[in-house]
Amino acid sequence: MSVGLNMSRRIRRTPYTDRAEQAGVTGFSVVNHMILPKAYGRTIEEDYWHLREKVQIWDVSCQRQVQIKGPDAARLVQLMTPRDLSRAQAGDCLYVPIIDDVAGLINDPVLLKHAEDMFWLSIADSDVLLYAKGIAIALNLRVSVSEPDVSPLAIQGPLAEDLLADVFGNAVRSIDFFKFGHVSFMGTNQLIARSGYSRQGGFEIYLEGSALGKALWDVIWDAGQQYDIAPGCPNLIERIEGGLLSYGNEMTRENNPLEIGLQKYCALDGAVDYFGRTALEDIARKGPQQLIHGVIFDGPSIGSCTAPWPVMHDDVWIGQITSGIFSPRLEKYVGLSLIKKGFWQPGLNIQVELPNGEVRLGNISALPFD
Amino acid sequence: MSVGLNMSRRIRRTPYTDRAEQAGVTGFSVVNHMILPKAYGRTIEEDYWHLREKVQIWDVSCQRQVQIKGPDAARLVQLMTPRDLSRAQAGDCLYVPIIDDVAGLINDPVLLKHAEDMFWLSIADSDVLLYAKGIAIALNLRVSVSEPDVSPLAIQGPLAEDLLADVFGNAVRSIDFFKFGHVSFMGTNQLIARSGYSRQGGFEIYLEGSALGKALWDVIWDAGQQYDIAPGCPNLIERIEGGLLSYGNEMTRENNPLEIGLQKYCALDGAVDYFGRTALEDIARKGPQQLIHGVIFDGPSIGSCTAPWPVMHDDVWIGQITSGIFSPRLEKYVGLSLIKKGFWQPGLNIQVELPNGEVRLGNISALPFD
Repeated sequence: MSVGLNMSRRIRRTPYTDRAEQAGVTGFSVVNHMILPKAYGRTIEEDYWHLREKVQIWDVSCQRQVQIKGPDAARLVQLMTPRDLSRAQAGDCLYVPIIDDVAGLINDPVLLKHAEDMFWLSIADSDVLLYAKGIAIALNLRVSVSEPDVSPLAIQGPLAEDLLADVFGNAVRSIDFFKFGHVSFMGTNQLIARSGYSRQGGFEIYLEGSALGKALWDVIWDAGQQYDIAPGCPNLIERIEGGLLSYGNEMTRENNPLEIGLQKYCALDGAVDYFGRTALEDIARKGPQQLIHGVIFDGPSIGSCTAPWPVMHDDVWIGQITSGIFSPRLEKYVGLSLIKKGFWQPGLNIQVELPNGEVRLGNISALPFD
Repeated sequence: MSVGLNMSRRIRRTPYTDRAEQAGVTGFSVVNHMILPKAYGRTIEEDYWHLREKVQIWDVSCQRQVQIKGPDAARLVQLMTPRDLSRAQAGDCLYVPIIDDVAGLINDPVLLKHAEDMFWLSIADSDVLLYAKGIAIALNLRVSVSEPDVSPLAIQGPLAEDLLADVFGNAVRSIDFFKFGHVSFMGTNQLIARSGYSRQGGFEIYLEGSALGKALWDVIWDAGQQYDIAPGCPNLIERIEGGLLSYGNEMTRENNPLEIGLQKYCALDGAVDYFGRTALEDIARKGPQQLIHGVIFDGPSIGSCTAPWPVMHDDVWIGQITSGIFSPRLEKYVGLSLIKKGFWQPGLNIQVELPNGEVRLGNISALPFD
């Protein structure tokens, strides 16, 4: 569907939007009440190959930070996630499912631990700030919960490290995966993490101070010319192939962390106190009734999945593809789907029902796709 | 700005989206993770005149319901709002500011009281459900907080009552403003309120059961032909002229209810217990430092306000227009702006700085605009 997006203050521009427009942005999505560039006039296949070979600059300001600060900050963060945070260190990034009292997923942010009393939750598309505030206010916790002026800029692709070493010095090379450090930029100290919403490597700069947005974009853009840098965005083909999940697509409040494969991030031994523990332990005892899988099936492409596509096995509904697109590398459709228990064998024959009425043949796949 | 909106499951379609597409929808906004039709190929001026004279059908499914049900439901709802709910009756709609511990606005929904232990909050664009859940879980309240399968369809304009009387019978005529009743539709009982996001009169049908969406649209569409019904959406000109505020535009968490003119919905005498009471009473004692006003200034039109426009008085910044558009009826720009204390005199000369560098002359106005 190609329709216009009407703009207002409510759907916020970012510190990089002017530059994205100059770079020829042609499509947006909306995440956390903020615009996310989604296309720059090239095909998603062109962007895919470029991301795998070069380096891209992504305006992911919509990954808003929920800042939790104060003497009770660690307690509040732990109450919201089943992941055991007791051994987390300052400088760590941790993928943390956030759940409610019935173990329904509220978000799947990356937690950045700044200090024992200071955390950022770098969120997917839901107002985690309001959940944190509700708990903090009700329990009268000694924390402040706020959204700081922080706008992540992602530099993704195999050449990202070389590029950022040119810009910020070789120290960035020593930042490990899912760790963060700091770099100096125009007299300010800025957080930089080795992370990002792709499997091609790269960094995210958590720019603090919107006024510096254009300057940061420009210095990376200019230095990136020798690396054939391009403006980009999370790439649907690359994301699905890599098995990266999207809150609102692969998971909603109807889902629990176990069925989307996050068991390793769930303390289920009763040693950690968090909301939803009883419900989650109960689910773990019974075992999840559906589990995230890949689905691979025949082309040709009729475009990406914008509303769920049923997945059948011998006329039995066994799941629905929530993100799916044709992979030019695998020359097959790749999709992500929760699959009903009993049908979890990689290689199992399935049929996918497309919205145009076609039925395509395929198989259950492990994740990530090869 | 005219760019594409990229679709996925995360940005939900509504029970009426197929019909909106058939009716020629050309633009969307995104509210509460759901699409809101914003244009049907006519100009906003054409829609404005039609809305004032005829009747329109609006897909406002994005006004999601936060259902709060259980023995502690009334307590939870009261904890979230400064409005005294002690005399609310089943069948009442109440405009209720929702605030946090520092009296910052989290949302400005309409509360529908079904029963002493059952409420809906019909929300603007923020995840009130997560705030309610946070409080409920932390206090271990005996409530369930959920988003039911309810998708409001608004029928707005001076001919709305005649049209809906044709469809549902004359009983709808006896529903008072901001009250709700029920009508029978295809064997189901559906809630209907005399309410809506315009000043032209009309109703909102809170359709329960997505599967009935197309049938409801069709029966109203067909009966509406003799009233010259058109597909529509909240109209920016009409909304601003009417002084109707928009969460995310005129107010954010940075604002309190008093500065956007909601003092009459705030219990400030200590008799009602809600979160943020101390902060709000403190603000009331000192008096708000800014207050919502209209701003009227010269054309010609250069389009609507998509990012705030500064409002000056003799080179002093006194506010910013957060929603603004040219009114073909008043032949002037009309805008909404918080105005700094000391500059609240209707008629006061002001200057508005437009994004193209122009400075336009105008005046402070009372709300609504005449």
